[in-house]
Amino acid sequence: MYRTNTCGELNESNIGQQVILAGWIQTIRDKGFVTWIDLRDRYGITQLVFDEQRTDKDLIDKAKKLGREFVIQASGTVIERTSKNPNLPTGGVEILVDELSILNPSIVPPFTIEDETDGGEELRMKYRYLDIRRTPIKNKLIFRSKVAQLVRNYLSQEGFIEVETPVLIKSTPEGARDFVVPSRLNTGQFYALPQSPQTFKQLLMVGGLDKYFQIVKCFRDEDLRADRQPEFTQIDCEMSFVEQEDILDTFEGLTKHLLLELKNISFDKFPRVTYAEVMKKYGNDKPDIRFGMEFVELNEELKNSGFKVFDEAELVVGINVEKCASYTRKQLDELTDWVKRPQIGASGLVYIRYNEDGSIKSSVDKFYSEEKLKAVIQKAKAHPGDLLLILSGAASKVRPQLSALRMELAERLGLRNPDVYAPLWVVDFPLLEWDEEENRYVAMHHPFTSPKPEDIPLLDTNPGEVRANAYDLVLNGNEIGGGSVRIYNKELQGKMLSLLGFSQEEAEAQFGFLMNAFKFGAPPHGGIAFGFDRLVAILGGQEVIRDYIAFPKNNSGRDVMIDAPSYIHEQQLEELNIKITK
Amino acid sequence: MYRTNTCGELNESNIGQQVILAGWIQTIRDKGFVTWIDLRDRYGITQLVFDEQRTDKDLIDKAKKLGREFVIQASGTVIERTSKNPNLPTGGVEILVDELSILNPSIVPPFTIEDETDGGEELRMKYRYLDIRRTPIKNKLIFRSKVAQLVRNYLSQEGFIEVETPVLIKSTPEGARDFVVPSRLNTGQFYALPQSPQTFKQLLMVGGLDKYFQIVKCFRDEDLRADRQPEFTQIDCEMSFVEQEDILDTFEGLTKHLLLELKNISFDKFPRVTYAEVMKKYGNDKPDIRFGMEFVELNEELKNSGFKVFDEAELVVGINVEKCASYTRKQLDELTDWVKRPQIGASGLVYIRYNEDGSIKSSVDKFYSEEKLKAVIQKAKAHPGDLLLILSGAASKVRPQLSALRMELAERLGLRNPDVYAPLWVVDFPLLEWDEEENRYVAMHHPFTSPKPEDIPLLDTNPGEVRANAYDLVLNGNEIGGGSVRIYNKELQGKMLSLLGFSQEEAEAQFGFLMNAFKFGAPPHGGIAFGFDRLVAILGGQEVIRDYIAFPKNNSGRDVMIDAPSYIHEQQLEELNIKITK
Repeated sequence: MYRTNTCGELNESNIGQQVILAGWIQTIRDKGFVTWIDLRDRYGITQLVFDEQRTDKDLIDKAKKLGREFVIQASGTVIERTSKNPNLPTGGVEILVDELSILNPSIVPPFTIEDETDGGEELRMKYRYLDIRRTPIKNKLIFRSKVAQLVRNYLSQEGFIEVETPVLIKSTPEGARDFVVPSRLNTGQFYALPQSPQTFKQLLMVGGLDKYFQIVKCFRDEDLRADRQPEFTQIDCEMSFVEQEDILDTFEGLTKHLLLELKNISFDKFPRVTYAEVMKKYGNDKPDIRFGMEFVELNEELKNSGFKVFDEAELVVGINVEKCASYTRKQLDELTDWVKRPQIGASGLVYIRYNEDGSIKSSVDKFYSEEKLKAVIQKAKAHPGDLLLILSGAASKVRPQLSALRMELAERLGLRNPDVYAPLWVVDFPLLEWDEEENRYVAMHHPFTSPKPEDIPLLDTNPGEVRANAYDLVLNGNEIGGGSVRIYNKELQGKMLSLLGFSQEEAEAQFGFLMNAFKFGAPPHGGIAFGFDRLVAILGGQEVIRDYIAFPKNNSGRDVMIDAPSYIHEQQLEELNIKITK
Repeated sequence: MYRTNTCGELNESNIGQQVILAGWIQTIRDKGFVTWIDLRDRYGITQLVFDEQRTDKDLIDKAKKLGREFVIQASGTVIERTSKNPNLPTGGVEILVDELSILNPSIVPPFTIEDETDGGEELRMKYRYLDIRRTPIKNKLIFRSKVAQLVRNYLSQEGFIEVETPVLIKSTPEGARDFVVPSRLNTGQFYALPQSPQTFKQLLMVGGLDKYFQIVKCFRDEDLRADRQPEFTQIDCEMSFVEQEDILDTFEGLTKHLLLELKNISFDKFPRVTYAEVMKKYGNDKPDIRFGMEFVELNEELKNSGFKVFDEAELVVGINVEKCASYTRKQLDELTDWVKRPQIGASGLVYIRYNEDGSIKSSVDKFYSEEKLKAVIQKAKAHPGDLLLILSGAASKVRPQLSALRMELAERLGLRNPDVYAPLWVVDFPLLEWDEEENRYVAMHHPFTSPKPEDIPLLDTNPGEVRANAYDLVLNGNEIGGGSVRIYNKELQGKMLSLLGFSQEEAEAQFGFLMNAFKFGAPPHGGIAFGFDRLVAILGGQEVIRDYIAFPKNNSGRDVMIDAPSYIHEQQLEELNIKITK
């Protein structure tokens, strides 16, 4: 037996017990006549003590020769500490060791394995197995496991069945790039790895399973960014005989459950806002609503007064930044520079200071009477001491610009409080968006998303105006889930694919299996997919996604330690009938 | 709202209620003045009724035009049935329909969607989404989901953390073939899909996670057999600071939990038998112990009596087949032919009939006195009416031959009762086996398996005799799990790899990351992996594995409906820098 107890469980109630512990040496403090070792395992830290009066000399010598991260086993008696550490559950006791064995030595680790480490990002990634020993990282992995377990238990209780869908599938042409896998049994042909199990879950609904979910790995062969992994995890769900409201209710229930269990926060109904409305109010389809700063449209108040920039703009729109009238000229210039950076692309920034004393000062005073500026202030519901910031231009450009400014200010003003959770549903997304490059409509969500029934006539006359039964769940400025009510009618699916530019033959080749299945009585159905990696990170405190992944990939797609991918054997290439060309 | 209730929940307590149901039409029975429809969903079947006296004529006409597998929605009143069906939970009531809408029509399905279908295997696989509507298949998918949920909850409660390991990994040379995935970011290089997360879980132990599990897809690019899928699911587990007994106890606990929850069978401690012993007793390392028929070694009794076949054999061994002394000569000849088939390869079969009247008749009477035959009968603990069947030859050949005969007889005699569960642990597997083709030792389990400490000296003198701390969990003649205590010492791991024929450089290239990790204090650890697909099938009643997979692959590795893999786009090949050679 390696241990009678873990390093996280002994306390004053165990005093006098004879125990065996095993773990890693976090620190050794040698005070001459007394030597202490902090012994760590997954569950905590327990102090071992060796002293000249009570410990055998050979044992003390042995202890003094140990090093950091040695794996040891120690037997001894639980005794009360003279100076207790109230911050540790085990801080009231220590183990007076009477036997010690080294299970495995360690060379000196490349960084300190403590909550605050001296290791840089790169080093910690290279030695991920050492980084995982650190409590903050270890706890993130445990947290991820807990979230998954909560999701599974909740959905199972709600009658959802977890079904595993295939990983080696047929490639489909929509969306981002597929990873491909050459087939040995069918040489010259390739499997694809799924970007999502979309078609399979729809087939499960045709198959009558009624409620399906899966926590599932998906794959996307796209260029990597810091927080996008080529393999990622989804909570994938689908339901039958439901309307949009049923789906929203169900997964609102799941999200509430997670927020309650993990954060001890309860919610009433989540707000449901249309895409049109969030774009108008926040310039963004995943608004952070932990703070206000909603857009105020000012065409009426500020156009046609001789200020050419506004007069020529499609949209003049501002935000009221509370208690910032005191911003200096320098601060305002800096903000102006900020919005003029190429990443944002605004041509300038107009401000109106509503000073504490009630006076008004703006960067456009010469064009506007105080009365006109007062009307703006009134519309923006500003209070003395507030600052209005205004942008103008084409609506499709100025909204995202102002959205970026809004988020930047919130960040600077500390309004994105990580302890606050503000979920909302964004609904009624457009069905289609125009792809300038391809000169055709593409599906905003995916080609299986159903149009709102009342908008179906518009499919023939004005497809860009058609709203979809599609929705996103947004949490603190992040899209954490998105889904739709699906088309379940073969004819409508055909029409949709033709709108998206598929010929009859292409549609048949790519989606024939789904359209064929629809011939045999597909039920009305819809679903949602949550980005599990992001959900976990947000629930964990909005830290980076890859902290919550045990073995993330680096920016070239290689595993952090194992340095995949690797060279392939000639023989295997031959069997697969493929050749490397460069 | 599509439905107020499912088709599985209404009964006499709901009489008088106004309800809405939705589902598929299983059958329509038109008796002229009354029409009944059996409406099916995942939860059950509810009878709809339309009759001339109580139903609007237009509605009756509409109902009569419906077809099998149409998806409909029906509103009506729950009424008591005149002739009840006691076999259905809903069999006491029917719905007097007052409103009906067709949600989706269906063409005539290619087979009947009922418990007993007229569809052949191939047709059912082609239209898997229709097959899934059938209760027996649907229930298997629900059962699989339930097993997974039980496993997760049990292991979570035991302190195991579920960690997702990467799917796109580096190829390693051991074991069966890897699927490979060309990398676009690192062209000319390939990811591999994991055959198991073995090295990752060991790194998690080095990382101090202490108890890890994962229900995870693994991949093997081998030729397919009926019951082997190229992608399969494992319950993968690893623990630290444990000895073999701790691991066995933990996963015996899991298995008992499953058998209790799913089968309502409780167990005391599972038997633990050494590999050497099961090979001697059953000629097989995964014996079915639901019945006895243990091997009886008869060298002492039957050799050196002038019967050349036995005299020259290394091993004479038999089984006692209870109550089969009445087998006719014809039956015995047929069994002899059976063991002589090339798949079995025995040269002949000797029988001894111990007749009900106490007399003895054997096929080798001329070589043996009745006394000698009696000694055999006594050793075999045979009773009057039993039949002894005896094979001889080289031990390594005759044992598997007799094992096959034992299983065949058990099958014929109905001794493999699917309602009986007989688990056992097989322990002390050999560490290495000699590979005739490669003329070297290969790891019987995998190269990370530790030898028994007391056998380590044999590594230098007689490697083939070294026993491993490796074990299999066997259930009803199937290996459902296997694992080992791992090597956690860099030097021993190096020695093991060199025994397996790896040069220093190869070992470094292939396993360097693991051996490097071992430098930093690896804890003692070990684990197990369960074949989830097989476990589910056995717990579900020993039916074929692929019945429990929603979308299995056929024998060429293609998905049963979607016909993957598929041809790849030229452009994608170019980006990946690969070319198809044939």
